Amino acid sequence: MNMASKLKRLAVLGSTGSIGRQALEVVRALPGRFRVVGLAAGKNLDLLTRQVEEFRPRFASYTAEGKAPTGCELITLEEMASHPDVDIAVIATAGTAGLGAVLAAAAAGKTIALANKESLVAAGGLVTAAAKKGGARILPVDSEHSAIFQCLLGEKQPPCRIILTASGGPFRDFPPEQMAAVAVAQALAHPSWRMGKKVTVDSATLMNKGLEVIEARWLFDMSIDDVTVLVHPQSIVHSMVEFADGSVKAQLSRPDMRLPIQYALTFPDRSFNASLPRLDWSDFKDLTFEPPDVERFPCLGLAIGAGRAGGTVPAVLCAADETAVELFLAGRIGFVDIPRLVERTLEKHSGVSDPSLDDILAAADWARRAVQELAGGGGK
Amino acid sequence: MNMASKLKRLAVLGSTGSIGRQALEVVRALPGRFRVVGLAAGKNLDLLTRQVEEFRPRFASYTAEGKAPTGCELITLEEMASHPDVDIAVIATAGTAGLGAVLAAAAAGKTIALANKESLVAAGGLVTAAAKKGGARILPVDSEHSAIFQCLLGEKQPPCRIILTASGGPFRDFPPEQMAAVAVAQALAHPSWRMGKKVTVDSATLMNKGLEVIEARWLFDMSIDDVTVLVHPQSIVHSMVEFADGSVKAQLSRPDMRLPIQYALTFPDRSFNASLPRLDWSDFKDLTFEPPDVERFPCLGLAIGAGRAGGTVPAVLCAADETAVELFLAGRIGFVDIPRLVERTLEKHSGVSDPSLDDILAAADWARRAVQELAGGGGK
Repeated sequence: MNMASKLKRLAVLGSTGSIGRQALEVVRALPGRFRVVGLAAGKNLDLLTRQVEEFRPRFASYTAEGKAPTGCELITLEEMASHPDVDIAVIATAGTAGLGAVLAAAAAGKTIALANKESLVAAGGLVTAAAKKGGARILPVDSEHSAIFQCLLGEKQPPCRIILTASGGPFRDFPPEQMAAVAVAQALAHPSWRMGKKVTVDSATLMNKGLEVIEARWLFDMSIDDVTVLVHPQSIVHSMVEFADGSVKAQLSRPDMRLPIQYALTFPDRSFNASLPRLDWSDFKDLTFEPPDVERFPCLGLAIGAGRAGGTVPAVLCAADETAVELFLAGRIGFVDIPRLVERTLEKHSGVSDPSLDDILAAADWARRAVQELAGGGGK
Repeated sequence: MNMASKLKRLAVLGSTGSIGRQALEVVRALPGRFRVVGLAAGKNLDLLTRQVEEFRPRFASYTAEGKAPTGCELITLEEMASHPDVDIAVIATAGTAGLGAVLAAAAAGKTIALANKESLVAAGGLVTAAAKKGGARILPVDSEHSAIFQCLLGEKQPPCRIILTASGGPFRDFPPEQMAAVAVAQALAHPSWRMGKKVTVDSATLMNKGLEVIEARWLFDMSIDDVTVLVHPQSIVHSMVEFADGSVKAQLSRPDMRLPIQYALTFPDRSFNASLPRLDWSDFKDLTFEPPDVERFPCLGLAIGAGRAGGTVPAVLCAADETAVELFLAGRIGFVDIPRLVERTLEKHSGVSDPSLDDILAAADWARRAVQELAGGGGK
């Protein structure tokens, strides 16, 4: 259905998080293009209430205890993502919580603006099969995958290689001995991107890039080994794609998540948005690229290995990392304990191949408990 | 008509020049994809005869005196470019000599693989109108315009800005006082591209980039002022395109003309070609960009001014430059005399707006004579 000429109806799941708030900034900046029909939050009921007052959605959803926003029906994430009144389901929930909603939107044939990479990493086979069966289209919201998607537009043949760029995070040049002493505030000071805490820590460990390799594998039907990572500290080139003839295409912009969010919402159109930053030549007067240091950033190798192993292994990777990052943010473990705990959890896991949703959720639950036990019993 | 599944029939006009020879290298490298039905050369009858023996075309054309290649019919460039047996007319003739053939191919609705930028610069209005009327498609062979074309694939809206990259040529860092003493051999030593003599000298003066600005204006229906030039000495990023939302796409490869030539011949497909170089990350570990120095390279400003003026002015620019470069290559004028002679010729020209083909050819003839007179009468 061509929606170009009418209002696109959005459900924003995870509306109080970093991506959700920026999605609503895009809606504000492009008046007359979108109608927000559903907003779903976790525990930030104050912000959700203000968002409901501003956007007047028909539906809301939240997990907190407290006074419900007035004037809208409370429904589940799955109901909201698959509701007939919704054209685009923006999935910006954190961690594996959004998986059920992604599967519901896929089965209902929605356009899915997917910012939640964990659902593809943990259950890429199920999600892509459901989207194919339901006739849903997944539009990536990650800047890297949006870049790849844009570079593939109009190409008749699949790419032969994807080059995912990585800023390298705040510890790109840290010597190994300093990595052990990294404080939470340092890990949260990302040099180029404005993002939520979990993904900011994942960017510092390069786990985020590893998850993105697996995400790219599913979004673009590639072999894990045809996805290469290059560190590009300027965060101007958001990824590249190489074709059979050796031609490479890249997408560039200032690092601002509102651009890939807006592109997923306006696709296949592009809209002028005066509040988005534009590249000036001085932004790219010097662009550098280098291979990642897999010794200092073991999470990248762990993720690529989990992606190659497949089955329930990526779900274990995701859940173990989620739990380890929570422990790090709570001050209970050190920065270098994150890869250690993830690695020990992966070693203990007995993988299931061709897993069902229950297998995946059970593996993720097991991984969360395993990390807690390892951390409590001398993980640090 | 979808030609993907059958042999594409090529006429290569300018087959003994740099682009023509590289087009035939592509034909050799992709056996079973193309049939050469016509070859046209200027004065290099020896090479044309060898090419005819190898490719056995039905038609040949040449301007030299001498023994004709055996086994093919001699026809004019216009007849060859528009012949019913030809699917793709590769226009790789030098200077304004190819203009008649481009117009004939356009009127006959051919796919035109256009390497001859002078025809678009001098007569862009006539050529694009003829292509539209005849149902012809112009596929750019210049690396920069091929890059732009590739970046525009699948986009629904026109770009808002084109960023043409320039290697900067061999004299990028030359101080002004050294520019006057530049020898022919220095001007022909291009740092990154293997090209013919005329375009190599044009690259050294940046006239080539100025002509490409005008070419881009016609190929992509842009305003001259929405085409920006950036110097990029590594010659890896071949050009960039900026869209309404601020997203920028770029195309990259090692500098090798066979890639844009092959892309124009195989479009919309891409083909693996083992003899084409592939980018390695170390090729782009450091990419730099800077605005051009219009003081030291006045040809760029002259060309942009001529493009803005329109009418017969770009034809005068082209022909004056062609003649000045010939005089430089013959050792009769110095390197810095090229822009001086072009500028003085442009000053003397009384432009005609909305010109006919005769107006354009007459203006070009006048410009050639004007440069000769200026050079003979104290141009040096």
